[in-house]
Amino acid sequence: MHDNSRPEPSGRGRGRFITLEGGEGVGKSTNLSFVVNYLTQHGIEVVQTREPGGTPRAEAIREQLLAHDSEPLDDDAELLLVFAARAQHLARKIRPALARGAWVVCDRFTDATFAYQGGGRGIDKERIASLEHLVQRGLTPDLTLLLDMPLEAAEARLASRLESQGGSKDRFEQERRDFFERVRTSYLSRATAEPERIVVVDAQGDLASVQSRISEILKQRIEQWR
Amino acid sequence: MHDNSRPEPSGRGRGRFITLEGGEGVGKSTNLSFVVNYLTQHGIEVVQTREPGGTPRAEAIREQLLAHDSEPLDDDAELLLVFAARAQHLARKIRPALARGAWVVCDRFTDATFAYQGGGRGIDKERIASLEHLVQRGLTPDLTLLLDMPLEAAEARLASRLESQGGSKDRFEQERRDFFERVRTSYLSRATAEPERIVVVDAQGDLASVQSRISEILKQRIEQWR
Ligand SMILES: Nc1ncnc2c1ncn2[C@@H]1O[C@H](COP(=O)(O)OP(=O)(O)O)[C@@H](O)[C@H]1O
Ligand SMILES: Nc1ncnc2c1ncn2[C@@H]1O[C@H](COP(=O)(O)OP(=O)(O)O)[C@@H](O)[C@H]1O
Ligand SMILES: [Mg+2]
Ligand SMILES: [Mg+2]
Repeated sequence: MHDNSRPEPSGRGRGRFITLEGGEGVGKSTNLSFVVNYLTQHGIEVVQTREPGGTPRAEAIREQLLAHDSEPLDDDAELLLVFAARAQHLARKIRPALARGAWVVCDRFTDATFAYQGGGRGIDKERIASLEHLVQRGLTPDLTLLLDMPLEAAEARLASRLESQGGSKDRFEQERRDFFERVRTSYLSRATAEPERIVVVDAQGDLASVQSRISEILKQRIEQWR
Repeated sequence: MHDNSRPEPSGRGRGRFITLEGGEGVGKSTNLSFVVNYLTQHGIEVVQTREPGGTPRAEAIREQLLAHDSEPLDDDAELLLVFAARAQHLARKIRPALARGAWVVCDRFTDATFAYQGGGRGIDKERIASLEHLVQRGLTPDLTLLLDMPLEAAEARLASRLESQGGSKDRFEQERRDFFERVRTSYLSRATAEPERIVVVDAQGDLASVQSRISEILKQRIEQWR
């Protein structure tokens, strides 16, 4: 990853940081396992994790973020909780893994903050960027797979997942259509701005074709970073 | 308070923001009630509160800050949790109270963050200042009563309070002597830098003399702000 506090990663002894991004139901969790398996089969030590969360204390913060409460959560408080969880996750899990040369594969990271708290809630991007800088100190993902598909199709997947899990919707899942349109637009505009890091993957096809595309990307990056 | 987003407070319809600061056992909670009673007796509507906390969601964050856990809490995560609780407190309690003209009296605020996370933990003050700016957007206390006394004397008070309450020490209370010396030094240097806002009150005398000094200060400020 790009981290000013240590030498540019060369692939020799320094891990790579890969994130999966996209709206609800696009297949992040499903494809996370695929990425982990792919890398493992290529002899790479992989740490699989997710945000918000990834460590016990960070997961406790996640619960506060997702939980409904009679007291509405202020937008700034939400943003700071996201970065508090991230700071803990970075300190206790991500940085130690990368330092020993493991690759980290994470379900959501800071692009989700720009998409959800920025695009969705309307928080000024400069405010988010200043927290990103404060917490990450230059550490950003090496590769981000942005799973993208139209909202209606993802909603259909989500509906059957909710049904089969019998779960109720969390604070984000219960947002309205226009919120998720802004989330999608934010993600895509970030991909346009950083085409080398963020690769858009068409998530609408069947799982086999999505995963064949992901394999291609991983194969190419592994070679590039070797 | 000094808030760029609204007209300079004139005392007509805009509340004042008073905070009590100082290390453990100096008498903040004890004198908070005194301040509240004093202002109430002068016909002022007062909202009494504390940090971290002050609203149900912010108190839940407080618990995460104070709780011992097998997973150590990262310094940056701690700092961000403090400001997440503060954002929630400001949005849900402090700003609405001030807007309707009530005065807010708060047990600890951002000076405590500079003293504990800055002085105590050694976090760079610039990092704290950037979060202060982001979260408070120019809102700072109008008056801060800094209760100051030597560590040994405050420890003696605290020991008898712990005994009578039968409680155990939280994550901060269990810090060592040099941590609290740095907290005290930070508080005093902030008072030196902002002598108009931060008034140092010798907290070592008996309660009657401490409260007589606090009355003087409040009397003078009420007249000044009228
Ligand atoms: N390419 C795909 N085609 C059909 N269904 C999919 C595909 N990818 C994922 N799913 C299903 O869609 C649902 C949502 O996928 P999930 O991985 O949980 O999404 P996310 O983690 O992005 O919210 C799950 O039931 C999953 O099995
Ligand atoms: N001026 C004082 N003289 C003697 N004891 C005091 C004085 N002020 C407070 N105390 C006692 O010291 C203990 C700590 O006071 P407290 O208000 O809880 O401090 P803080 O909130 O600053 O930690 C309490 O038992 C309180 O009754
Ligand atoms: Mg998922
Ligand atoms: Mg107290």
